[in-house]
Amino acid sequence: MPELRLNLVTREWVIIATERARRPMDFKNSIDKRILPAFLKTCPFCPGNESKTPAERSRLPNDGPWKVRTVDNKYPALSKGEKKLSTDGFRRSISGVGIHEVIVESPVHNQTTALMPLPEIEDIFRTYRARFIEAHKDPRVEHTILFKNHGEDAGVTIEHTHSQLVAVPVVPIQIRDRVQAALHFFDDTGECMLCSMIKREREEGARVILETDRFLTFVPYAALSPFHTWIFPKRHSAAFSTITDEEIKEIAFHLKAVLSKFYYGLEDPAYNYVIRSGRPQDDGNEYCHWYLSVVPRLTKAAGFELGSGMFINTVVPEKSAEFLRSVRAETAR
Amino acid sequence: MPELRLNLVTREWVIIATERARRPMDFKNSIDKRILPAFLKTCPFCPGNESKTPAERSRLPNDGPWKVRTVDNKYPALSKGEKKLSTDGFRRSISGVGIHEVIVESPVHNQTTALMPLPEIEDIFRTYRARFIEAHKDPRVEHTILFKNHGEDAGVTIEHTHSQLVAVPVVPIQIRDRVQAALHFFDDTGECMLCSMIKREREEGARVILETDRFLTFVPYAALSPFHTWIFPKRHSAAFSTITDEEIKEIAFHLKAVLSKFYYGLEDPAYNYVIRSGRPQDDGNEYCHWYLSVVPRLTKAAGFELGSGMFINTVVPEKSAEFLRSVRAETAR
Repeated sequence: MPELRLNLVTREWVIIATERARRPMDFKNSIDKRILPAFLKTCPFCPGNESKTPAERSRLPNDGPWKVRTVDNKYPALSKGEKKLSTDGFRRSISGVGIHEVIVESPVHNQTTALMPLPEIEDIFRTYRARFIEAHKDPRVEHTILFKNHGEDAGVTIEHTHSQLVAVPVVPIQIRDRVQAALHFFDDTGECMLCSMIKREREEGARVILETDRFLTFVPYAALSPFHTWIFPKRHSAAFSTITDEEIKEIAFHLKAVLSKFYYGLEDPAYNYVIRSGRPQDDGNEYCHWYLSVVPRLTKAAGFELGSGMFINTVVPEKSAEFLRSVRAETAR
Repeated sequence: MPELRLNLVTREWVIIATERARRPMDFKNSIDKRILPAFLKTCPFCPGNESKTPAERSRLPNDGPWKVRTVDNKYPALSKGEKKLSTDGFRRSISGVGIHEVIVESPVHNQTTALMPLPEIEDIFRTYRARFIEAHKDPRVEHTILFKNHGEDAGVTIEHTHSQLVAVPVVPIQIRDRVQAALHFFDDTGECMLCSMIKREREEGARVILETDRFLTFVPYAALSPFHTWIFPKRHSAAFSTITDEEIKEIAFHLKAVLSKFYYGLEDPAYNYVIRSGRPQDDGNEYCHWYLSVVPRLTKAAGFELGSGMFINTVVPEKSAEFLRSVRAETAR
């Protein structure tokens, strides 16, 4: 019989449909990948075309040829201007102010995170941290989403490896729900939900993929899709902006391990990852805890997901974890 | 400058990104459609293959060749059995009990709702009503989602036209949020939010696509995607199960009008529609109001949507409505 599991973090019920389960190897991506060149003259993110992008916001390293660049999005979902609320008590709107940046993660056109040298992934996280802090200096910003799309099924439109930062002038209801769930858990137990989850996942072990001193990577108990993976920092902090250099070294290692397992074990599937975090000023908060979520796009959301907000996961989370543990990770520096 | 609009029903903020707006005609589906046969011997939903489907649950008309059939889903996300909750205070699960049915909407393999005779669409809605009522006779069922996927981008796996009913043993958090929003609106104003919305949309007119005695069809003020459309019954009722035969005639007309506008104006895009409704026993409830939502799948959800629950709509809702008004609807009986 199938099973419904409650995701404590999101308060969403996930249907684990064991009856329609596929084996992990059935997910292997059968689509022939297009071979990409290492340099593409017409690509705005390739070296030599820096003038084709809007304003540059950051660059690493500081001298010599760049390895990671941040630029404004050419077609921003949000822009500069005055934050103006308008309501007639019924219709409510806010001017679309905020930040929409693109982080170009490598000068090499066909680079992919799974195969990137670790020091380059560390540079990406250093850039994320700097841009995240910068975004929250803007008093109009209430929430920041840092994410990466990989592969067409994950919504990629420009193939040159990059991620995006969107800083919005509102708190999305999804975030409000999560904060409330975390607060209730704290009130009930006197503990941070994620700190508590780390303890339990380590004890049980069935869903753990990788553990180091500072991070635990595991498949959530109520994973929303096959191979959905969470990377949790062990140190309690509500804000990603507090990540230390030592932690950056470890999260780069965990992310590369997970993505290279996807790459080799599932034949480079499309995926999204998202850093879920409060603002720098939320750091003192005892009940929120930032983390990174990686969701491979192996199944399509349809009317059921749209109409319920629920998900159907066709692989038991413990089996996803078992499979991912068994695939070799490429984590050489 | 872009604009953020609050969807009062869902409490979600939508970014209307006018700067990256495309014109409605740019959405025309450039993908060549595969020509489908009217009959396919290997299709489990084609006439003559009735024995290939699991248990039949309903059939219309009662005698003669069937036009609409309901069968159990061959790979159900939920199944019969005992509803058992289990929790260790941390991990919570419920056995996957519930109902998962497929409504085969026509015996003709290549039929599509946009081009179907109205009496056949009425039969589909009569079937929806009957199955919805039947589902809620099961005390394990707490919420029912009735939806249709059309086109591969909307999650279709079997091309023969059909819809699905999934009755779940929990209330999804998305639904809890909506009920709470409706309740707060009622407490604040003494009115049902959707009844109030109907009045205002009629007064303003800019987003209205079609109006008849019993239904109003319009593009939501905070539409989550281009051409997202709501079909609202004017009579207040929390439960779709109360729909009358007269109302079925009208909703069939509205749905066909909308889908034929999509078909001719946007070249048969993929879409999902969902009936959003309370249970039959919620009918007395003054603040919930059932409706039908149609979402064309013209853009892809990516990391931003996953990480925030927010949507970016690249067409101003008033422009979507203007375009849909201008396209001819095929609504001959």
